[in-house]
Order: sequence, then structure tokens, then C-alpha cells
Amino acid sequence: MEVTRTLARYLVNSRWADIPQRVRHEAARALLNWLGCAIGASRHATVERALAAVREFAGPPQATVLGRSERLDILTAAFVNGIASHVLDFDDTHARAVHPSAPVLPAALAFAEWRAVRGEELIHAFVLGVEAECRVGLSVFPEHYDIGWHITGTAGVFGAAAACGRLLRLTEQQMAWALGIAATQSAGLREMFGSDCKSLHPGRAAQNGLTAALLAARNFTSSERAIEAPRGFARVASTRFDPEVITAGLGERFELLSNMYKPYACGLVMHAAIDGCIGLAREHRLDAQNVDRIELAVSPLVPELTGIESPRTGLEGKFSIYHAAAAAIVHGAAGEPQFSDACVRDPRVAALRGRVSARADPSLRKTEARVTIRTRDGRVVSTHVEHALGTLARPMSDDDLEAKFRGLATGVLPAARIAELITLCWDIAGLDDAGALARAAAP
Amino acid sequence: MEVTRTLARYLVNSRWADIPQRVRHEAARALLNWLGCAIGASRHATVERALAAVREFAGPPQATVLGRSERLDILTAAFVNGIASHVLDFDDTHARAVHPSAPVLPAALAFAEWRAVRGEELIHAFVLGVEAECRVGLSVFPEHYDIGWHITGTAGVFGAAAACGRLLRLTEQQMAWALGIAATQSAGLREMFGSDCKSLHPGRAAQNGLTAALLAARNFTSSERAIEAPRGFARVASTRFDPEVITAGLGERFELLSNMYKPYACGLVMHAAIDGCIGLAREHRLDAQNVDRIELAVSPLVPELTGIESPRTGLEGKFSIYHAAAAAIVHGAAGEPQFSDACVRDPRVAALRGRVSARADPSLRKTEARVTIRTRDGRVVSTHVEHALGTLARPMSDDDLEAKFRGLATGVLPAARIAELITLCWDIAGLDDAGALARAAAP
Repeated sequence: MEVTRTLARYLVNSRWADIPQRVRHEAARALLNWLGCAIGASRHATVERALAAVREFAGPPQATVLGRSERLDILTAAFVNGIASHVLDFDDTHARAVHPSAPVLPAALAFAEWRAVRGEELIHAFVLGVEAECRVGLSVFPEHYDIGWHITGTAGVFGAAAACGRLLRLTEQQMAWALGIAATQSAGLREMFGSDCKSLHPGRAAQNGLTAALLAARNFTSSERAIEAPRGFARVASTRFDPEVITAGLGERFELLSNMYKPYACGLVMHAAIDGCIGLAREHRLDAQNVDRIELAVSPLVPELTGIESPRTGLEGKFSIYHAAAAAIVHGAAGEPQFSDACVRDPRVAALRGRVSARADPSLRKTEARVTIRTRDGRVVSTHVEHALGTLARPMSDDDLEAKFRGLATGVLPAARIAELITLCWDIAGLDDAGALARAAAP
Repeated sequence: MEVTRTLARYLVNSRWADIPQRVRHEAARALLNWLGCAIGASRHATVERALAAVREFAGPPQATVLGRSERLDILTAAFVNGIASHVLDFDDTHARAVHPSAPVLPAALAFAEWRAVRGEELIHAFVLGVEAECRVGLSVFPEHYDIGWHITGTAGVFGAAAACGRLLRLTEQQMAWALGIAATQSAGLREMFGSDCKSLHPGRAAQNGLTAALLAARNFTSSERAIEAPRGFARVASTRFDPEVITAGLGERFELLSNMYKPYACGLVMHAAIDGCIGLAREHRLDAQNVDRIELAVSPLVPELTGIESPRTGLEGKFSIYHAAAAAIVHGAAGEPQFSDACVRDPRVAALRGRVSARADPSLRKTEARVTIRTRDGRVVSTHVEHALGTLARPMSDDDLEAKFRGLATGVLPAARIAELITLCWDIAGLDDAGALARAAAP
């Protein structure tokens, strides 16, 4: 079965007219969500370290470091922006596997600053890149991930190569090589979770996928069966390989429609409880000082993964359901500011944290929660969150995504620029020059 | 068992005085051999394609592209020179696993052009880099290779990180991170053999290992158990892992002493037969026109791997024992020129090729051959090559290595410069500025 060749042929022959409106709009939503994450992380310590390490070696100022004044060559920009995309753990998540945008958009948008790319070409390339990385990833999932590969890195490089190969207008032969050059650079270990290297993975995937496309455009050859051959990517890096997952329904089923966005700057398992807290506080105009008890019923995964009772840092706060619930009541939000060191140490939040209980209920899914709040003046209010906001069953609205973007970009860019970027993202498919989006993301 | 930490500690604490003279000299031999291969490949089509693809994105002119006038930033130079190192398949081979120099020296020498590095520091870093890559590679060998990983890429990145980490004077903590950052970039599939991507692997390993060291120097963190953890490199990328191979005898046993150099520009299995042909022709002053029959007895591997009877290109000539034997008689050599398209098409060689027979003899090792030559005037001469030149049992002499270097560099650099480079390699440990070696390798 010609898997690599079939995928390459689709990537090269897909027409913009074949991309349904719903998919195009989802791509704009993903773009807005991704751009906010990268801008919001532009001063993150991990990004600062990466930039300090590589800036002396960067080439001409071809592309923007999002949210910053530096301009770097497109390969280095893709690397740094790829790290920024993922470092807050706030980027999008395909319902079953990879974080789709972080490896693809940093490469494609850097490319668009260097060579004339229309907005619809950028979006089209992004849609195709997501298709490539998700299908390659899912063809070896979950065994590949279970072994210990960080699939956002290992599959992401295929997505970046596919998107950039499309922008470079590769031939079918060259696209097959680009996928092969991607395959032989595929890397990233889950062992790195908890260290700076976790976000290195999409950064490298973006940079290496872009490099793969650039090499293929010069007729740099690779195996033409890089995915499916006995010593190809799938067999070497997984005990499972279902080639049909890659080739079936190309152009009919779009993986981007299974994409999810996080409303809260923490792991998905805490989202339903946070939802319930924010909803009850808003609906009943609860005053945090008047809250006596917060009683959560949650999936057993929640205390298992996020059971830190007395977090000391913002990072620990991301693994404390007690902190998340308390901060949600005090601030009516659970964005990056609610997982800062300052918020974790805030006496109002700390006091309320001690009055949160979390009962594991095996009947609840990990995106489901029941929340009961008892006030000092005797009121009892409760809610059942069946599907956390941001799941496929209850997606974030366009307005929600705009609000998330504003929250991330505020403090990095002025308000007028933030509004301009939001408009550019929604209107991306009509732009003559897609690179304008990146340039507008510099202060 | 603290494998990563133990290795990092050794790499950081090793002293120059602890490196035996024999190892130092072997390092100079490896340096000379490697430099010749990279210079000799400096106009190779694969190198041209890679350079064309990335030069627009390269940074300041910090380092030499060996054998060429271009200067690139050190990361891009390490990449291009890493590709050049391996593309002729003429670089060194550890007796059991990786090609040691190609991933390490391009990174270390580029670094030495950018920051002041004394010759002994360069050689010391190289020795340690070889130790790291060979030990990591051997700890998962052969299963890791058998699965389909190209170990020169996957282990090579550890070598480049170790050598450059040493040159950057990383702390033990930082060196552990550098090894971790290397581990999570480890990549390269054997499926790529036969394509340009085979030599991409050491190029990427050199560049990514150097990047790993630069990131670690900025305190970019990784797992500190990247090699041995349940989701670390060894368990994820191999079914076998022997941690003792990495930690036992550090500073006592040196992997560089198991390094081999190829006298002939083709696969090792053809070397014994070529040896015999060149030896007989020289000893008996045979005239090719007077040769009637060349009868080879060889390991069964030889016809299996190099059985092309009528090669049409230089590359096919590398897989034709018939061509190799004929060219060795006609030219008294088997360097790159003997595996050119022109030599394959040379009527004198083609005529003799048809009079070569190769009999598989299972009693012969792959580096052993019997050669009998019958002349038209009735003479019969024969020889038994027990160990091909270049094996550990019969290493190339320093003079042999010089001759190989001259053969590779001639046509790229003038004779006086070639002589200067040879002297610089032998005297490397005494140089104040190791970067002088790279600068002298530009035309």
C-alpha cells in the first residue's frame, strides 16, 4: 500500500475550493487560539532561554518572534515560536492525539513573512498540515505514545513539512521526499514532560518540517516509502500501524473538525470543576468572602493528577484542583494570571483553597463534574457540568476565543493592536499578504 | 542506576592529562581522515542541495564550509559539514557500531572557529564525544539498529552534545541536560539508506548536539535521566539496554581505539579483494592489458551485497565487486576517482570487468579474500588477504592516511595547502587556535 505517495498526492492536489467553509472557519479559530498562546508566552523563561541560546546564530531578519521586537530567519523563528506555542500548555488539542497548531503554524506563518503567501494559501496549507500530522499520528496511536514518544513532536514534523511543502508548491515527488525527510527527523520523548524540552518538541518539529520542505524543493532525496516501509517511521517507532487511517477519506474527513481549545490555563481534567465554579459564582453573584465550602464531585482522575492541596508556585497551582476552584471563585476566571505565583500566594485564594473538597466519583467522565457551594449565610447552590467548556460537545464560542486571546495578549500588545489581530485572524482567508498577521504581532 | 548523571560527571571532570598518548594520536588520525572526507565531498550533489536549501537562512559567517569559500553560522556549518563528512561513505567506522567522527567533529570544529579553543581542548572534546556516542550506541546495540534506527544519527547526537558541552565548559548539571536535550532530538531511519537522507543524519546530529549544548549552557532544562528512565531514550528506541556499557571503565577504556578507516571509497566487504588486486599488480608489475582473468574467492556476503555485473554509474560501481577489482588493476587504486561515472565507462576498465569472477567461499570472513590473476602470457600469481587494510587487525598507517587525504583534497585545494592541513592535523594538540584548521580548509 502506497501510503506516503498517496498522502503526498493528496497534499499536492487538494484545491482551496475543496475545503468546506466549516473547516476554513475552524482553521481561523485555531489560528486565533494559537496566536494568543504564542504571544502570551513571549516572555516565558523557557522562550527566553531558547532565544538566548540561538540568537547569535540566526540569519537575516525574515520573520517575527511573536509578541517581541526581534526578527530572525524563518527557521529560527519557527523554532522559537514553536516553543512559545506550547509552553503554557494552553494550545489546542486534537480529540485523540496531537496538539495540532504548535508544530505547523509557526513554520507556515514564518514562511509567509518570507515569500508572498495569500491568506487562503496559508489557511489551506495549515488545514493540510493538520491532516498530515493527525493522520500519521493516529495511524500509530496509542501504542506509539504509550511507548514514550511525544506525538506532538514525532507526528508534528510531518504536519510542518506538509504545510510548508504546499506553500513551496512542491511536486508530488518532492512532497513524498519532504514527508520522508520529516520522518527521519521525527523525535521527542515523553520523559521530557515537566522540563523545558516538552515545548522544544513542537519548536523542533516546526523548524525541521520547514527544513524538510526546503530540502525537498532542492530535490534532496529520501526514501519514497518513509511512513510505511519495514524500516520506515511507523514500524520503527510503533508496535501498531494502521495505514488506512492515513489514506481513507482524504479530502472528505477533516481532522481539524476534531480540534479543541482550552478555556483554562491548566490540564483538561480540572476544566469541568472550574466551569461549575465560575458559572455558579456568576449566576448567583457569589462573594468569595461569603463562600463557606466548595464541594466538588469529579472523575477519580482529578485528585490523582491534580491533588496538590497546598501549592507553592503557579506551576504547582496547575496541578491543584483546590487552588483552581478557589481562584475561579475569587477571580471568576482561570487564565494564566490565576496560575501565577502571585495568585497562588494571594491570602484570599489561599484561605478559600482550604475549604474546597474533591470527592472522586467513578461515574463521572473526566470532563464532567458536580459542584456545590455553601455560603456563610446559609445558601446552597449547585450545578452539574456534563461537558466542560472546550470539549467537542461544548466548544468554546468565537467570543470565548476572542476573550481568551485578549487575556493572553494584554500586557504584551496594546489594546488597539489586539483588536486588529483578532480581526486579521477572522479575515485571514481574504488577506492578500498572510505575513501581515505576523508583523502585526510584534509590539 | 544513574546512567545519564554518571556519564555527565565523567564528561565534565575528565582531564587532558588522563587521555593516553595513544588515544590522542588516534584522535589526530581520525581528524585527518574525517577532514579529507569532508573536503573531498565539498562539491558533492547532496552537499550542494543541502547548502542551496539552507544558505538563505544562515546567520553570521562564523565557520567554514570545508573545502569551500562560504562561511556560515556555526549551527548551519555543522549541518552542512556533517552531511559532507558522510556522503562518500568513506568516513571512519567504530568496530561495532557508529561512524564516530561525522556527527562530532563538524560541531566541535565549527565551535572552535567561533570561540577560542586550543587544539588540545578540541581533541579532548572529540575523544569525549566519541566516548559518549559509542557507549550510548553500544548500550542499545544491535537491537536498536536492527529495529531500523541509523545509529550514526541516533547516537551521534549524544557525541556532538558531549563534545560541545565540554567546549562550553558546562557544569555537571548542565551536561546532564545537554545529554537529555540530545536524547529528545535523537533521530534517523535506516529506511533512508540509498538516499540523500543517509548523510543528513550525521549533519543533523552535529547541529542538534551543538544546539543541545548551547541550550543547556542557558539552563534550558531536560529530564536528568534521559538515557535510562522508563520513557528515556534507551527504553523507547530499543528492546535492549545495558546501562553498564555506558558507565563501566569510563576513563580507562577508550572507544576511539576501536576506530577504523577505509582505504577504499566503497563498502568494507570489497576491501580485501581490492587489496589483493592492488598488491598483486604492484608486486608483479602487471599490465592491465596483459591480464586475462581475475579470480576472486570471497565471503558470500560479497556477491550478495556487491554483485552488480555491469554497473552504469559510479554509484553502481560501488556495488560491483567486478568493477572494483578491474579498476584496482587498471589504476592501482580504489579511491573516489575509481568510483566515478567516467571510470565505470572507461573501456579499459569495462573490458577487464568482464573477466573477473567472484566465487563465494563460506570459510572466508568478510574482510578476507583470495585473489588469483592469470595473464595472457601464461603467468599465474595469487595472494591470500587475511585482513583487509583498514581493519583493526591491519590498520592504515599514518602514511596511508596522508595518501588518502591527498587523494581526497587534490582538485579542491592546492598542494601546498594540503601539506599544511596534514601538518596541522598531526600537530593539532599543540595548536593555540584550533579554528585555524578549519580556516585552512577553505580554498
